Amino acid sequence: MIKVIKIGGNVIDNTTALEAFQRDFACMEGSKILIHGGGKIATQISQKLGIETVMVGGRRVTDRPTLDVVTMVYAGLINKNVVAALQSHGCNAIGLSGADAGSITSHKRINKDIDYGYVGDVDRVDAAAIKKLTDAGFTPVFCAITHDGNGTLLNTNADTVASSVACGVASLEDVELIFCFEKDGVLSCPDDDTSVIPHIDTAVYASLKESGVISGGMLPKMENAFAALKAGVKKVIITSPAYITDQNAPHTEIVL
Amino acid sequence: MIKVIKIGGNVIDNTTALEAFQRDFACMEGSKILIHGGGKIATQISQKLGIETVMVGGRRVTDRPTLDVVTMVYAGLINKNVVAALQSHGCNAIGLSGADAGSITSHKRINKDIDYGYVGDVDRVDAAAIKKLTDAGFTPVFCAITHDGNGTLLNTNADTVASSVACGVASLEDVELIFCFEKDGVLSCPDDDTSVIPHIDTAVYASLKESGVISGGMLPKMENAFAALKAGVKKVIITSPAYITDQNAPHTEIVL
Repeated sequence: MIKVIKIGGNVIDNTTALEAFQRDFACMEGSKILIHGGGKIATQISQKLGIETVMVGGRRVTDRPTLDVVTMVYAGLINKNVVAALQSHGCNAIGLSGADAGSITSHKRINKDIDYGYVGDVDRVDAAAIKKLTDAGFTPVFCAITHDGNGTLLNTNADTVASSVACGVASLEDVELIFCFEKDGVLSCPDDDTSVIPHIDTAVYASLKESGVISGGMLPKMENAFAALKAGVKKVIITSPAYITDQNAPHTEIVL
Repeated sequence: MIKVIKIGGNVIDNTTALEAFQRDFACMEGSKILIHGGGKIATQISQKLGIETVMVGGRRVTDRPTLDVVTMVYAGLINKNVVAALQSHGCNAIGLSGADAGSITSHKRINKDIDYGYVGDVDRVDAAAIKKLTDAGFTPVFCAITHDGNGTLLNTNADTVASSVACGVASLEDVELIFCFEKDGVLSCPDDDTSVIPHIDTAVYASLKESGVISGGMLPKMENAFAALKAGVKKVIITSPAYITDQNAPHTEIVL
């Protein structure tokens, strides 16, 4: 069993939370892969460089200067600092973009209404390449930058990178996919952090979507979760980073 | 035989030269490792971010904001674009800092006169880790960022990274180290680009240093070259990128 863990920008932006997570992740037994989001640093650096940040539906419109900034921040600043921290805790991390080892190939998003620029939708994960790294004892740490195979880097949604990597690796061995975010799981009452729904299957999801309990940014996360299960991922969990060390901590398990 | 190739900032800064090099490097037969310098982009980004660049004796004084910039630019922007370009030419590149796979550990430079800040001098190369990657069919592409093993990244001279990697790998297999720079080799007349000295041994080096023919930035390059030979590297060449495709091109071979 290999665990694929995704942490979001909220962990990256919070030094205390990030340091705790890095220690806990480093101590996890067995094969594991980390995918990290970007957080607010790219927006701050863009501002300082005088590059306007344009968001449409929660997605960053990525023109060429913005692509350079996210490549610098996600693949450079964040990825290498996370790798150095994991190494200091005894975890043999190796930081990757999707270009590295040809691991994740994507295509520039085609949308008739909006030009998202250098935003990539994943086509292919080279699971054998990733497995060579884990078999060699390395822990892959992915940022959410991929490539098109023709020399162009593409900014890619980190949840999608996580589920794509999980689906790819699932063709070679059993995979558990864990999305860590700022809540303990999917909540039945958005204002009550203790209202974690323990299990969501497709029928429950349909009714929660209908009633508006699940909305906004949780919708693509849920879609990624179901897609992963359908592609053969054994277990998908939505939870907080606390789950990494305590699997009795509150969490939502997604089931088909 | 594994070839360790170092390209300097002058190649990184020249789009045409960089594209030609990437095509040529991708086509090279056999195991190979690339080490790239940084070029002027970090200085330009620092300026835009309002961070003062301080150089002492050709070395960048690296305070915390400058470390963040060089990490972004060297390990992110440059490294990932080089990797994506090599992948597009069929070379299975994997971009690395010294933190990745714990490959290069260094310590913060101690100097009684100048505080260089986050500048690292190399202590140890994990040749076995690098060999795992080349044996798996990957081509490591190193930027000149290393780590101290305690979670801190360090800005490191790219020539030193190249010779350290070459020396480390030489303990496991035969290595040829090729420093590519803007001239065809070491020149006997600095103003005459055709005056390439074909061979330099320690005696010739001593006399060229004494007469001032070799000076400035060439001195540490020569020291790195001799150190590599003494550590078991089979062949050390100082040349232009043209040598990659044509080993009859003008070049200087360093010999003990």
